[in-house]
Amino acid sequence: MNQSCGNQRIAGCSFSVHPMADDFVKYIKDSLSEVDTTKVWMQTDDVTTTVRGKIEHVFDVTKAILLHIAKTDVHVAFQGTFSIGCPGDFSGDAYMNVSSNLMNEGLDIRQYIASKFSLYPLGGGEYMNTIYKQIDAMKEKGVHVAPAHYSTRLEGDTHDIFKGLEEVFRETQAQVPHTVMTVTVSANSPSHKEDLNE
Amino acid sequence: MNQSCGNQRIAGCSFSVHPMADDFVKYIKDSLSEVDTTKVWMQTDDVTTTVRGKIEHVFDVTKAILLHIAKTDVHVAFQGTFSIGCPGDFSGDAYMNVSSNLMNEGLDIRQYIASKFSLYPLGGGEYMNTIYKQIDAMKEKGVHVAPAHYSTRLEGDTHDIFKGLEEVFRETQAQVPHTVMTVTVSANSPSHKEDLNE
Ligand SMILES: [Ca+2]
Repeated sequence: MNQSCGNQRIAGCSFSVHPMADDFVKYIKDSLSEVDTTKVWMQTDDVTTTVRGKIEHVFDVTKAILLHIAKTDVHVAFQGTFSIGCPGDFSGDAYMNVSSNLMNEGLDIRQYIASKFSLYPLGGGEYMNTIYKQIDAMKEKGVHVAPAHYSTRLEGDTHDIFKGLEEVFRETQAQVPHTVMTVTVSANSPSHKEDLNE
Repeated sequence: MNQSCGNQRIAGCSFSVHPMADDFVKYIKDSLSEVDTTKVWMQTDDVTTTVRGKIEHVFDVTKAILLHIAKTDVHVAFQGTFSIGCPGDFSGDAYMNVSSNLMNEGLDIRQYIASKFSLYPLGGGEYMNTIYKQIDAMKEKGVHVAPAHYSTRLEGDTHDIFKGLEEVFRETQAQVPHTVMTVTVSANSPSHKEDLNE
């Protein structure tokens, strides 16, 4: 492991949630008030919100923010870039000295989402089998998987999809120190044919 | 050049625009009716819209769609993943046999945006100098540039920023056949301090 990857275990996500409603600010504030963010570093500016910390908490918090907005039935989009081991990264703004038990795990909101994700293992390596294995695991949980331009399309329950994405990310970064994954999600879309909680 | 990069000149962007308004559908439809998309392949599903074609037309069309929504003063977010040379790509769904003159170039909407972009040259190579050179070129045009977690933050006029992003993308893919660039934009945000068109 070279010096530039010394911070690789600090994961992060730069994300945005977009409730498509006139009172989008209220949806976001209400969601944030319900999510436990004590195990991540979090900062919001006018473009994105950044969370940093252990992989499991980064996924736990981003999923919880999405779910607390989606449960209101507003049409909401989520876009996140999950990253780990960036050579330009530094060791600050991280909450690594925390336990792994999740702060928002009890969330029993069932929410259908359609999503697209792309995985970018930077620096090469044999990662395709890792991706295929995790996609098969998602399929076994009932997630619908289809190819799309520049991404893989996933449809199903939010918990199943985020669990699968976390596993893909975790296993890939174990092989390729600098790994980036982009995830775009649409919930409660008027063009969705199916919605598990309707 | 290896076989898997044979389609590298077909660029594409998988993007979403999110007008934060109850009548978000109308904003999107109105914008699309004003944008000339005849030189790109375009398809929309419930998660993203994909455009494919020559680099210049992919940037021209995505910028025009954003600008026609932003000119209404609604708060709108844009998220796009620009990609070229993906080994999994194929030669279909492309409009390569068209001239390079832009179909939406006359658009004189001046719009302040805050954005973050990340460049992922997949397969390594010496690309950092390319990025720095293009960032310097953007600064000379008055774009404000700042580092951010996992990205570079840009603030300024939409035309200047998209021109800079297109140049970064174009020059990087000339050196690294498979190049991906993610761009997140916020326009008319209530938290923007400055807005050139107010
Ligand atoms: Ca719902």
